[in-house]
Amino acid sequence: MFSMFQVITCRAAVAWEAGKPLVIEEIEVAPPKTGEVRIKVVATGICHTDSYTLSGSDPEGVFPVVLGHEGAGIVESVGEGVTKFHPGDTVIPLYIPQCGECKFCKNPKTNLCQKISAISPVGLFHFMGCSTFSEYTVVADISLAKVDPRAPLDRVCLLGCGISTGYGAALNTAKVESGSTCAVFGLGALGLAAIMGCKAAGAARIIGVDINADKFKVAKEFGATDVVNPKDHSKPIEEVLVEMTDGGVDYSFECVGNVGIMRAALEACHKGWGTSVIIGVAAAGQEISTRPFQLVTGRTWKGTAFGGYKSVDSVPKLVGDYMNKKLKVDEFVTDTLPFEKITEGFDLMHAEGCVQTGLSACRPGSPLSTHQAMSRLASHLI
Amino acid sequence: MFSMFQVITCRAAVAWEAGKPLVIEEIEVAPPKTGEVRIKVVATGICHTDSYTLSGSDPEGVFPVVLGHEGAGIVESVGEGVTKFHPGDTVIPLYIPQCGECKFCKNPKTNLCQKISAISPVGLFHFMGCSTFSEYTVVADISLAKVDPRAPLDRVCLLGCGISTGYGAALNTAKVESGSTCAVFGLGALGLAAIMGCKAAGAARIIGVDINADKFKVAKEFGATDVVNPKDHSKPIEEVLVEMTDGGVDYSFECVGNVGIMRAALEACHKGWGTSVIIGVAAAGQEISTRPFQLVTGRTWKGTAFGGYKSVDSVPKLVGDYMNKKLKVDEFVTDTLPFEKITEGFDLMHAEGCVQTGLSACRPGSPLSTHQAMSRLASHLI
Ligand SMILES: [Zn+2]
Ligand SMILES: [Zn+2]
Ligand SMILES: [Zn+2]
Ligand SMILES: [Zn+2]
Repeated sequence: MFSMFQVITCRAAVAWEAGKPLVIEEIEVAPPKTGEVRIKVVATGICHTDSYTLSGSDPEGVFPVVLGHEGAGIVESVGEGVTKFHPGDTVIPLYIPQCGECKFCKNPKTNLCQKISAISPVGLFHFMGCSTFSEYTVVADISLAKVDPRAPLDRVCLLGCGISTGYGAALNTAKVESGSTCAVFGLGALGLAAIMGCKAAGAARIIGVDINADKFKVAKEFGATDVVNPKDHSKPIEEVLVEMTDGGVDYSFECVGNVGIMRAALEACHKGWGTSVIIGVAAAGQEISTRPFQLVTGRTWKGTAFGGYKSVDSVPKLVGDYMNKKLKVDEFVTDTLPFEKITEGFDLMHAEGCVQTGLSACRPGSPLSTHQAMSRLASHLI
Repeated sequence: MFSMFQVITCRAAVAWEAGKPLVIEEIEVAPPKTGEVRIKVVATGICHTDSYTLSGSDPEGVFPVVLGHEGAGIVESVGEGVTKFHPGDTVIPLYIPQCGECKFCKNPKTNLCQKISAISPVGLFHFMGCSTFSEYTVVADISLAKVDPRAPLDRVCLLGCGISTGYGAALNTAKVESGSTCAVFGLGALGLAAIMGCKAAGAARIIGVDINADKFKVAKEFGATDVVNPKDHSKPIEEVLVEMTDGGVDYSFECVGNVGIMRAALEACHKGWGTSVIIGVAAAGQEISTRPFQLVTGRTWKGTAFGGYKSVDSVPKLVGDYMNKKLKVDEFVTDTLPFEKITEGFDLMHAEGCVQTGLSACRPGSPLSTHQAMSRLASHLI
């Protein structure tokens, strides 16, 4: 069954061009080269970044490509020089690698490893170092975490993106303190994960903000103590929050990807010490702005990618936290589909209907928000 | 001589209206009320904030007013309930108070005490809680620091604003680490003080940036290891710095008050961990902007007021550091004038000629930068 030096022919969901649905095709996956690992993908989530790229809105998007970056699977074979992985290992691909050697990896302040390992399966572009919308994929060994083999792969695959990002934004980037007041803008998967992080940090008050009141129930289940719908107020949401909290929140999180909301999240922070963290990814070319007075009077503006987690070190621990019931993951899953129906997964992610679970990112009228959507599993039939 | 309950008639430099020179007039200074202290002002600096307000550019500026907020003097009398000060004490007025009781004072993260003590001498508005352009002034006891009586008042008055602001921006707000690389934009008094703070923190490399090469000599004397003139480069200054430093600086400081330079200072920071601190005060209505990607990839944008120093606690220590030669102050003084010539002090601050000392903030073509100017002493003849 293991064919270490052979091309594998398998099915993949190919994005042939921008704006067109994925097509399930037979593709050839080359054997892993030096430092690479070939994985049998068992499950993958669908994230708004996949959708954003597929739409053609990302100026850096290239086609044809195999999308997908929230996967989990089993190592099939390893290339030369790979010592940390062996066939049969349970793994999660990582879109931010951790080489352990670059100046970023050596600096405890960042997780943004800059080692680049370009991988391109025959004739198709690789995506975010992962390309998990395929029965088999090849990734660099620095872009792979070995996790507990008992972990259910159709759950923990979600730790490869949004859940870890929102959770880590609260714990690592904002470093939320016990007893503090937090606001989370946007109650999709990212926002729920940020709420979960604030709660884990001991926040006394966690205010969920969304224009879709259907999301409030689940936000409260995740730990929100208050919910606010900007549509219920005539004044700007930052003013509403400043009034609600006697001067502003200690920490705020933007989980939408809208530059106007990023500004509101900053300006909802308390003078003197409030910190706002941008988690959502804005559309290309958009800019944030504010009066410098906001910063001069003591607010801090930050951002996060993958929640500040050094990926190889952290994802196995996050899987462990899930196994030990410290971290919710199951609650993020809204639908599970067979691989053949992956395009339906995209439809579900964008559908109005998905808000019934409170987990959708579809905010009509706002720019497409990446990394905010509930991921939907498209399990492979292997 | 002490007239605790009497009005004092003395001279002050009165700003009657926006855009007109100050006029030395006889004014009446009321006795201190409850919680107030009347001070014989011995020396005062002139800061760009005074000039900015006098110009009428500050939408919140009111007239007629006695400007001045970098003063030092001797307590003449105290109002009811004042226990920490006595006639004869050597003091520095503080434009940010420290009441010790408000939630800002109790929070170690901020120095922005919000206790408001409105004081208005008869018929004239008070300025920044200080109004030091007068032979006598009245301030709230929470807006006053008692300092070493041996300190030369025509020097340490400068610790009431710019020097402390720039120095503290590096030490308190950025928390510059030993061995780090810093960039300081704008080499006026604020910038020189920021360089001094970076050096005190053990920065390995301190890059001074200014479009006026005449400022470079003094910047090096203060600790700059490199100097860069954006005019010498065809590419944007942030790109020049990123190339010079293999990816960007660890800390940057904007000491000009120009929103374009604020953006450049942020974008000159290293991906993953660079922190930029806004010190300069932009003109009313101007906004900063950048792509959110700058923050999402690990940069932090902050600001500072009075260098993050809790004023009552810190100014006496800063005076002590100056007396112990840990902190330069004398080097910031370019001219000393008698009180009668205070309007000449303003002219000198704005003159092209003042750049010969490398200490001016006059940057033709850029918005007026407050808090960046070299302060000039106008000693009272009392
Ligand atoms: Zn690395
Ligand atoms: Zn994602
Ligand atoms: Zn206070
Ligand atoms: Zn000043």
